[in-house]
Amino acid sequence: MSHAPSAALSRRHRLVREALAHAGLDALVVTSLPNILYLTNFTGSSAIVVLDAERVGFITDFRYTAAIAASRGTAAECPGLDLVTVDGSYDATLASTIAAAPGMRVGFEAAHMSVARHQWVAASIANQSREDAASDSDGPAPASVELVPTEGIVERTRVRKDEYEIAVVRKAARLLSNVAREVLGDIRRGRSERETAAAIDFRMRKAGFDKPAFDTIVASGPQAALPHARPTGRTITEGDLVVLDFGGVYDSYCVDLTRTVVVGRAGSRVREVYDAVRAAHDSAIAAVAPGRSRFDIDAAARDTLAAAGLGDAFGHGTGHGLGIEVHEDPRVSRRRPDVDARDEAVASGMIFTIEPGAYLPGWGGIRIEDDVLVTEGGVEVLTDVTTDLVEV
Amino acid sequence: MSHAPSAALSRRHRLVREALAHAGLDALVVTSLPNILYLTNFTGSSAIVVLDAERVGFITDFRYTAAIAASRGTAAECPGLDLVTVDGSYDATLASTIAAAPGMRVGFEAAHMSVARHQWVAASIANQSREDAASDSDGPAPASVELVPTEGIVERTRVRKDEYEIAVVRKAARLLSNVAREVLGDIRRGRSERETAAAIDFRMRKAGFDKPAFDTIVASGPQAALPHARPTGRTITEGDLVVLDFGGVYDSYCVDLTRTVVVGRAGSRVREVYDAVRAAHDSAIAAVAPGRSRFDIDAAARDTLAAAGLGDAFGHGTGHGLGIEVHEDPRVSRRRPDVDARDEAVASGMIFTIEPGAYLPGWGGIRIEDDVLVTEGGVEVLTDVTTDLVEV
Repeated sequence: MSHAPSAALSRRHRLVREALAHAGLDALVVTSLPNILYLTNFTGSSAIVVLDAERVGFITDFRYTAAIAASRGTAAECPGLDLVTVDGSYDATLASTIAAAPGMRVGFEAAHMSVARHQWVAASIANQSREDAASDSDGPAPASVELVPTEGIVERTRVRKDEYEIAVVRKAARLLSNVAREVLGDIRRGRSERETAAAIDFRMRKAGFDKPAFDTIVASGPQAALPHARPTGRTITEGDLVVLDFGGVYDSYCVDLTRTVVVGRAGSRVREVYDAVRAAHDSAIAAVAPGRSRFDIDAAARDTLAAAGLGDAFGHGTGHGLGIEVHEDPRVSRRRPDVDARDEAVASGMIFTIEPGAYLPGWGGIRIEDDVLVTEGGVEVLTDVTTDLVEV
Repeated sequence: MSHAPSAALSRRHRLVREALAHAGLDALVVTSLPNILYLTNFTGSSAIVVLDAERVGFITDFRYTAAIAASRGTAAECPGLDLVTVDGSYDATLASTIAAAPGMRVGFEAAHMSVARHQWVAASIANQSREDAASDSDGPAPASVELVPTEGIVERTRVRKDEYEIAVVRKAARLLSNVAREVLGDIRRGRSERETAAAIDFRMRKAGFDKPAFDTIVASGPQAALPHARPTGRTITEGDLVVLDFGGVYDSYCVDLTRTVVVGRAGSRVREVYDAVRAAHDSAIAAVAPGRSRFDIDAAARDTLAAAGLGDAFGHGTGHGLGIEVHEDPRVSRRRPDVDARDEAVASGMIFTIEPGAYLPGWGGIRIEDDVLVTEGGVEVLTDVTTDLVEV
């Protein structure tokens, strides 16, 4: 279980209920596990929530009922939680939970429910309502439940972190910065990328992280030109650039950090590209403030690299939101009116990465990444490691 | 990228095409990443495959096009692969790829496509077909594409491993057994569950695994009574039972192993329960052979525990399939006619765990897990670590 205080959970429930009322819905079926964690503190791998105006219907199986029971009466208890233990299958239990409320308009998360589950549950509800009508032929036929697709109701609440979440991420970012300082002192010629990545993961675990937030990247020499390289058996060698990109999950929240080091003395081209990437990183952070467009924050980094002749070398977005998931909203990316125009302005409480890079096939690559929080007054950089070029 | 030889991929394509023909389908949209890996060797995090009678349409974004290009001409090249780089969004690119084949019946994976994606793609195809009809008003209106829900087409092929897969899992199981022997010699009083889990993960990485296949379980003392416990700060103490359940991903394939040790000298109750769990483990393995029901294999373990008065102490299934996913078919579980009756007989090439356990709240728990392969002649146990009770 996670540790958000009951009052924080109550506030989250209230915000989601307001969104439901606004959409004319009586309840929401929540099938996204990160959304379930956000609403209930549940960290297991199987559950479904049915949130209505009064209660938090919580469907799970025997593996997790003890953990739910143990959370009762604690400071992190989920208010209004009504436990339903799975009988038969999750789908069947969900259908009978929903069908118990005839006439309701029940939203579901269209991005997090498969076509198969939706078909099965809808058919089962329709059957049940026909049976009820047949067995109760004196009264009026009960109205069937209406299943309504919804998009991003809980995610839109999650995008601005509450006080509890900010405190957890701030601490996680401090721990990750400590790990990063150790890692920078730890890069050795003759060690493989894979061994280096294993050592980073071990340091994160020792620092208190539950696990890596994603597969750790150690990309050396020509591999560094691939933004999403996986660690290989390649040995770190004199003259290499080495991109180190790693993050951890701490008390259910993700943090993420990248530094690039050079093995030996940096040549003039390395210094030139490094300085341009660092300037892009600094410009983007300087552009962060409540009300600023996330596309403009991206442009601050992108324009800086373009001015240094590295526009084409920066193929990915400038950053992504961090929280219960390691990639969530807001996306700090190039403006693309047709795809991405929703929710353009950043706001206080948002947490995201700033991670510009330059990748030159055959030569290598450089990326510098920090995690930032939008504050009332502007920006707080949560990670704290030197951005000076480190020669190892 | 993974390393299945091109001939193995061709065979997999042929089997899926036969299943499509049998279902009266012209093509299949594959959105499950494990299924995509199985059909193409792709190990990235974003792609969609559209497999038809001739080609393997492969939709991915700029991050992965270099890896696809690099696989061309290698021994593990995907035959018939036709690369489509994402333009705008995955949904839009998928819709235009499908709409290019009017009149076709196109299956999709109902368990692996969200309602949101399905609605968007279906609406986009319908629009496009209306526009085509309007712009081409002389000829007959082109038939729209029909999207047909399917279930488990690729998964049913995956359940019996081919020679390449068996060789990879056999090697992975040998490596994991080496790690397990080190781990058994490594349990220390005074070390926390979390530290012990971190040390296990580090050993797996050093042994060549890409990452843990799931969150490593180290459950000591009363924690051992929870089959899915997470490692805590609890210190391993004299008299504890310690359940150690860990697995790794090796060249895209998962293996999984559990041993339970006792800290200090085992008392008579510990020996009694341990012997019963080991007898259940041995009976289940003895029951494995081609044509045997997976429910009967489960019953072999369950009946042995029940005879020892531990029937109620064994709440989970006896095993699960292993492969690209750490939990896949076949499920070796209790017979439940309404839910689980499909594909009852096991067959040569299937790989799954045998992992009975006994859990006594307040006292602790014991689980012993090995990975087995169904062979023509019976069974091969792939993992190889003593099942004698280890006192540390």
